[in-house]
Amino acid sequence: MTTRAYAESLDAVDPLAAHRDAFRLPDSVIYLDGNSLGPLTHAARAALRETVDVEWGRDLIGSWNTADWVDLPRRVGAKIAPLIGAHADDVVCTDGTSLNLFKVLSVALDKRAGRARVVSERHNFPTDLYVAEQAIARAGHGQYLYRVDTPDEIDALIDDDLAVLLLTHVDYRSGAMHDLAGLTARVQEAGALVVWDLAHSAGAVPLGLREAGADFAIGCGYKYLNGGPGAPAFIYARPRHQATLEQPLAGWFAHTDPFAFETRFEPAADMRAFLSGTPGVLGMRALEAALDVWQGVDMAEVRAKSIALCELFIATVEARCAGHGLTLASPRAADRRGSQVAFRHPEAHAIMPALIDHGVIGDMRAPDILRFGFAPLYTRYVDVVDAAEILHRILDERVYEASCYRQRGVVT
Amino acid sequence: MTTRAYAESLDAVDPLAAHRDAFRLPDSVIYLDGNSLGPLTHAARAALRETVDVEWGRDLIGSWNTADWVDLPRRVGAKIAPLIGAHADDVVCTDGTSLNLFKVLSVALDKRAGRARVVSERHNFPTDLYVAEQAIARAGHGQYLYRVDTPDEIDALIDDDLAVLLLTHVDYRSGAMHDLAGLTARVQEAGALVVWDLAHSAGAVPLGLREAGADFAIGCGYKYLNGGPGAPAFIYARPRHQATLEQPLAGWFAHTDPFAFETRFEPAADMRAFLSGTPGVLGMRALEAALDVWQGVDMAEVRAKSIALCELFIATVEARCAGHGLTLASPRAADRRGSQVAFRHPEAHAIMPALIDHGVIGDMRAPDILRFGFAPLYTRYVDVVDAAEILHRILDERVYEASCYRQRGVVT
Repeated sequence: MTTRAYAESLDAVDPLAAHRDAFRLPDSVIYLDGNSLGPLTHAARAALRETVDVEWGRDLIGSWNTADWVDLPRRVGAKIAPLIGAHADDVVCTDGTSLNLFKVLSVALDKRAGRARVVSERHNFPTDLYVAEQAIARAGHGQYLYRVDTPDEIDALIDDDLAVLLLTHVDYRSGAMHDLAGLTARVQEAGALVVWDLAHSAGAVPLGLREAGADFAIGCGYKYLNGGPGAPAFIYARPRHQATLEQPLAGWFAHTDPFAFETRFEPAADMRAFLSGTPGVLGMRALEAALDVWQGVDMAEVRAKSIALCELFIATVEARCAGHGLTLASPRAADRRGSQVAFRHPEAHAIMPALIDHGVIGDMRAPDILRFGFAPLYTRYVDVVDAAEILHRILDERVYEASCYRQRGVVT
Repeated sequence: MTTRAYAESLDAVDPLAAHRDAFRLPDSVIYLDGNSLGPLTHAARAALRETVDVEWGRDLIGSWNTADWVDLPRRVGAKIAPLIGAHADDVVCTDGTSLNLFKVLSVALDKRAGRARVVSERHNFPTDLYVAEQAIARAGHGQYLYRVDTPDEIDALIDDDLAVLLLTHVDYRSGAMHDLAGLTARVQEAGALVVWDLAHSAGAVPLGLREAGADFAIGCGYKYLNGGPGAPAFIYARPRHQATLEQPLAGWFAHTDPFAFETRFEPAADMRAFLSGTPGVLGMRALEAALDVWQGVDMAEVRAKSIALCELFIATVEARCAGHGLTLASPRAADRRGSQVAFRHPEAHAIMPALIDHGVIGDMRAPDILRFGFAPLYTRYVDVVDAAEILHRILDERVYEASCYRQRGVVT
């Protein structure tokens, strides 16, 4: 069940197979790094040309009206909404993930000013911890950040002194996935708020944010949403919070009437309150168009294929590369894993450049993680088997020992 | 001296005339709104195609290294530096103007935590005031924002209780320009810090930030720098401040070694400390390329032509439109004015749409301001005279009274 012929048979009946045509993937590359930078779509490329040549180049300032650039944050948010289990008005697209985390966390900290403890994970993505420390310091409520070493510790910290639980839903290295609905329910039962970082979840796994009642979530536009390098990010807020958002980075686009140029700030009574200044139109237009590839896509089918791809990769690697020092760093249980698979290897820093040179693009996370992302809209089953075979060859022939592979890669 | 022939003679000997060829300006339009959105350059268009098709589309994640996306914030900053009188390492390009103001103001407030008063203008661009209030509240030093009604009041407020003077160098409506060097010197003599918003200055007037010893400055990429709609913004800091920047929105790109993914934050000991998350590559590449048009340009020549354009516009409008209810809203003295001219008219909200329909693109600011920006790299003297003549016709024939011009425009 790890042969190429078997993989081909899976591709032949894959209901998502046709979506691959929406992407401009280079030939001769197996791209397993869409969890770091999603590839270019034909739609994003065409939209950018239109935006540059016509909207900016020809219509100039008038495009704020005629191309409705003004409403891009809400329009793009509305297109992200169905992918994360939200309604159109629950989501806004703006700024970057770190900045958006500062905003939602500041709001959450203020709403639970009488509670002291903020809980996150020691091995959360670093920026989340940096931002949490700053938001806590600037909120001025005497709150503190408690970092757990393992998820098992979280439950005991959910009590009446918990202000906010801040978790990245899918771990950026291991791909381990938290129980979003279960944790949200337990946190709220204790009267606290939950903030979810969906950087490695949105577009990868189904997310029932509304159904779960999650308070706030932020996420990234350039991974599984394919918005382009450094694409703008998004914010979700639970409906009950949306009318009373007072966030510290509100700029003129967060005003209820930006073009009145009022010197007294009055926040919009909806998700626009999370905006800051003028939206970055080029990035937003690329993301907006890239989101078109999700039209008619059933997230349950995405999840089913994601699990199948990951399972096939684990099985194939473990079957072919046995004895070569790889150990699975991701949860073995599919329901506890996002759409990526990580293996540890002491020579990971040399193996990944060798893999890339041989056409398999994943990435490496210090000190010893080989990370592979699977994007069901364009990753094929044959890609999975081929990648595992190339990994096998590089290990078996010790290709990675060549001096050219001994430098450390820098990929985000 | 307000005839078209005279304007043609000025264009014929204009040393900056050739730079107009760098821009893709639509035919049949006189674009006097580059102080809101600079036009497309051939360079930005080509760079975006390369970035999309090759860097993103073909090289994918590898472009963080091969196209050095990682260093874009410093690379673009270095290209802005000569336009504002700074050294390459003094400037970084990142995020938006509002967000960058929050960062520098937070740093400045912390550095003067023992002083209570922050001074700005009541009629500053609204976002600056919103951000100032939030930064002050979150700094937690008990500081307060004092808004002066006129610049005359500022000097009396420069004393040992002044923490920070926050001014927009060139007023977004009237074009009135502060004395950057003089105010900087007086503020620093009093032991306070100064923060300059250069949104309407960078690329429009010479700015000797280093020479003046200005503490912090922020500015916009999409006006006179022509970076495209919602282009990323920039931050300048005085060299003495650069090694000790602790700003509240620091994300992983502000870390001294971002790709080590350290969970403990250690800020870069340079301007990268002002970065947050992953840079918005599309916007930065457009701005980077657009900045190429400044190569070999002498800012003194830019200023000389800017003054000549503005003076010609004022003289021509006042000569041709006398008796039609226009009053100059900009300072009459050229040395107190940026690169824009504003006239008040009670029917401004209808006159501007009529002007735009007749091929003269400026903008309108409530309640009664007609605003015209002059960008010496592409605005010609004949444009100025032609625009004044079209304005005259619209007033004289009362074109603006048509019902289609009675709605209010929305332009940024």
